[in-house]
Amino acid sequence: MSEVRELAFKAGELDAADELGELRGKFVLDEVVYLDGNSLGALPVGVPGHVDDVVRRQWGSLRIRSWGESGWWTAPERIGDRIAPLVGAAAGQIVVGDSTSVNVFKALVAAVRMAGAGAGAGAGVGVGAGRDEILVDATTFPTDGYIAGSAARMTGCSLRPVTPAEVPGALSDRTAAVLLNHVDYRTGRLHDLPGLTAAVHEAGAYAVWDLCHSAGALPVGLDEHGVDLAVGCTYKYLNGGPGSPAYLYVRRDLQPRFDSPLPGWNSHAEPFGMRPEYTPAPGALRGRVGTPDILSMLALEAALEVWDGVTIESVRAKSLALTDFFLECVAAYVPEGRVESLTPGAHTERGSQVALRCPRAGDVMKRLIENGVVGDFRHPDVLRFGFTPLYVGFGDVERAGRVLGEVLT
Amino acid sequence: MSEVRELAFKAGELDAADELGELRGKFVLDEVVYLDGNSLGALPVGVPGHVDDVVRRQWGSLRIRSWGESGWWTAPERIGDRIAPLVGAAAGQIVVGDSTSVNVFKALVAAVRMAGAGAGAGAGVGVGAGRDEILVDATTFPTDGYIAGSAARMTGCSLRPVTPAEVPGALSDRTAAVLLNHVDYRTGRLHDLPGLTAAVHEAGAYAVWDLCHSAGALPVGLDEHGVDLAVGCTYKYLNGGPGSPAYLYVRRDLQPRFDSPLPGWNSHAEPFGMRPEYTPAPGALRGRVGTPDILSMLALEAALEVWDGVTIESVRAKSLALTDFFLECVAAYVPEGRVESLTPGAHTERGSQVALRCPRAGDVMKRLIENGVVGDFRHPDVLRFGFTPLYVGFGDVERAGRVLGEVLT
Repeated sequence: MSEVRELAFKAGELDAADELGELRGKFVLDEVVYLDGNSLGALPVGVPGHVDDVVRRQWGSLRIRSWGESGWWTAPERIGDRIAPLVGAAAGQIVVGDSTSVNVFKALVAAVRMAGAGAGAGAGVGVGAGRDEILVDATTFPTDGYIAGSAARMTGCSLRPVTPAEVPGALSDRTAAVLLNHVDYRTGRLHDLPGLTAAVHEAGAYAVWDLCHSAGALPVGLDEHGVDLAVGCTYKYLNGGPGSPAYLYVRRDLQPRFDSPLPGWNSHAEPFGMRPEYTPAPGALRGRVGTPDILSMLALEAALEVWDGVTIESVRAKSLALTDFFLECVAAYVPEGRVESLTPGAHTERGSQVALRCPRAGDVMKRLIENGVVGDFRHPDVLRFGFTPLYVGFGDVERAGRVLGEVLT
Repeated sequence: MSEVRELAFKAGELDAADELGELRGKFVLDEVVYLDGNSLGALPVGVPGHVDDVVRRQWGSLRIRSWGESGWWTAPERIGDRIAPLVGAAAGQIVVGDSTSVNVFKALVAAVRMAGAGAGAGAGVGVGAGRDEILVDATTFPTDGYIAGSAARMTGCSLRPVTPAEVPGALSDRTAAVLLNHVDYRTGRLHDLPGLTAAVHEAGAYAVWDLCHSAGALPVGLDEHGVDLAVGCTYKYLNGGPGSPAYLYVRRDLQPRFDSPLPGWNSHAEPFGMRPEYTPAPGALRGRVGTPDILSMLALEAALEVWDGVTIESVRAKSLALTDFFLECVAAYVPEGRVESLTPGAHTERGSQVALRCPRAGDVMKRLIENGVVGDFRHPDVLRFGFTPLYVGFGDVERAGRVLGEVLT
């Protein structure tokens, strides 16, 4: 039991020194240790009142006028600009809207068309210049693979699943585009975005990054590393709410060549001109499609206010401290050999979650939840714990490790 | 002025006899005559409280558990089944989610693939059996045309814009699919869904109908008329709120052949199996894509409660009475020659709106709105007035006609 006292004491010290500790008050939390913010972020306290205003006043009272007066029409790009600094992007390159899956489709088809520009891709049937292959992360969250399959099929490309480590060796002058995850949803492994992007570019192809499990948890550096296109969801570390809209990043210099497979009226240069011919809007706007889902989108906008004055670097520092401490607690509390970490020990390879392989993981997670520690289970044998630095403290981490130890003892 | 007294008296009589009159109390309304429900429906009184519960309790307190316990995961098909009777569909054929534009893309690509099944469309590059043409309503709301252009480009088809009247003559054994609007967004003309669907089928092609301006305003009869695929928005006559998710109908017997261009994990037969290979779910579920936008979707679900006990036939009867009476008021109040109705006089050809061509329509609409009558302006010269039978009364109609007469005198 001295080990418990020691780690509990250490947690107290870490919490006392935590410069982000006060942010916890910006979220609705209870006695539960919530380590599932990498699936659905907790509710920021400012959201319910804002949503109520959107519903009662903006919709109920102003009604149609709100498209202009309440800023509904420009929400996708305005909120995109609010997300931009969190992923290292200058303004004017991100629009919010649609699901991650739909944005993967837009990004990947557009990337293939960029790769084949001027040589056949204009017809949408195959790309030119011999570039007819899409590489996709074989360890990806499955929807990315399914959508990549469709993008390949519809552009006349073949799809080649490879692990991120195999990408450099798989690149060739046949490669049109590469779809990669910044952090693996299952293992929590952080992939080398700068290095892989550079390798893709060296091969003359385009890199599309899925930021679902990194945005809001660690620096991404989209502009700095020359990423071509990126997508991400907003309901994990960005706390936008269930199914809040995803976003699409198109690097500024590529925007004139962004040729969307979903050219809806919201991406038209003159959306209210009702012209029969499609003329794409300039800039990031051409990533928009149809009418944006205003309630979900404005809930997200209110949720993003918790980031005011917070740097992603401080979030990253705390995230690593949290996962380090969790691994320490697991090592101390869990009997030898009962779990195995799938998450890399090296900081440079770790996202903001810890995945533990564990026999009967589904049952174990059920018991953890019964005992007030919420993580999630990933088929077939993974316990997944997400650490959102904005509201998870070191005391939570110690308790989670301790309860896990009790359940497994 | 005796004319005013006479029409005001008639309005009072019609309102007194209106069996749907009490439904007005189910909406948040004020002194404004709101004739823009064909753009954004008014707020149903039950929505704010429900949304607040979704945000505070389901998200804020239950958090991730709500995917199961609050029915989030099954919302797309559950709400689809709630919409189904309003468009004449049996259960199990509609899923809610994504924007109308995205659903047009799904439906049209799937239709083309059905038309070419077994003869090349499997590769996504061109359809087989010589069917390589998509017909699209040339008078359509533009986004349908833009998306149809993309669907054509990505399936190797050509796109041929024709007016609905020209469709029968344009059909041939080259036609793969036809995209039509049930009610024209600009003129309010109701097209012959049964007749055109039959003609499309006779040519061996597939009919995709856009119901944005008819669902919730008049009987559609999807099942009865053998429509293949249909899409529609939910924020007009269905009052789902700004940008509430659209829906997709796939006729039951076609579902096994529905081959989506957006095969996201939500349409997988085993979505939590995280399998690398895509296996589509059975039934309408395969129209789903990514994580549904829960806040917007559950606001829609609450909004649909106003339909309890209401038949679409009674709505249609009142809708025609409203537009008849509006045309009568316009004829009486507006000086001869100042406006011209673009909306057909025949009931069989009229939706639930009246479009008046009017010089300087933009300015005229501005003055109408200043005087408490809200319709909308459609480029270049159209005043558009939508009549939602659930909350618009005959007194509103008389006042709108009278104010229009004053503005134009």
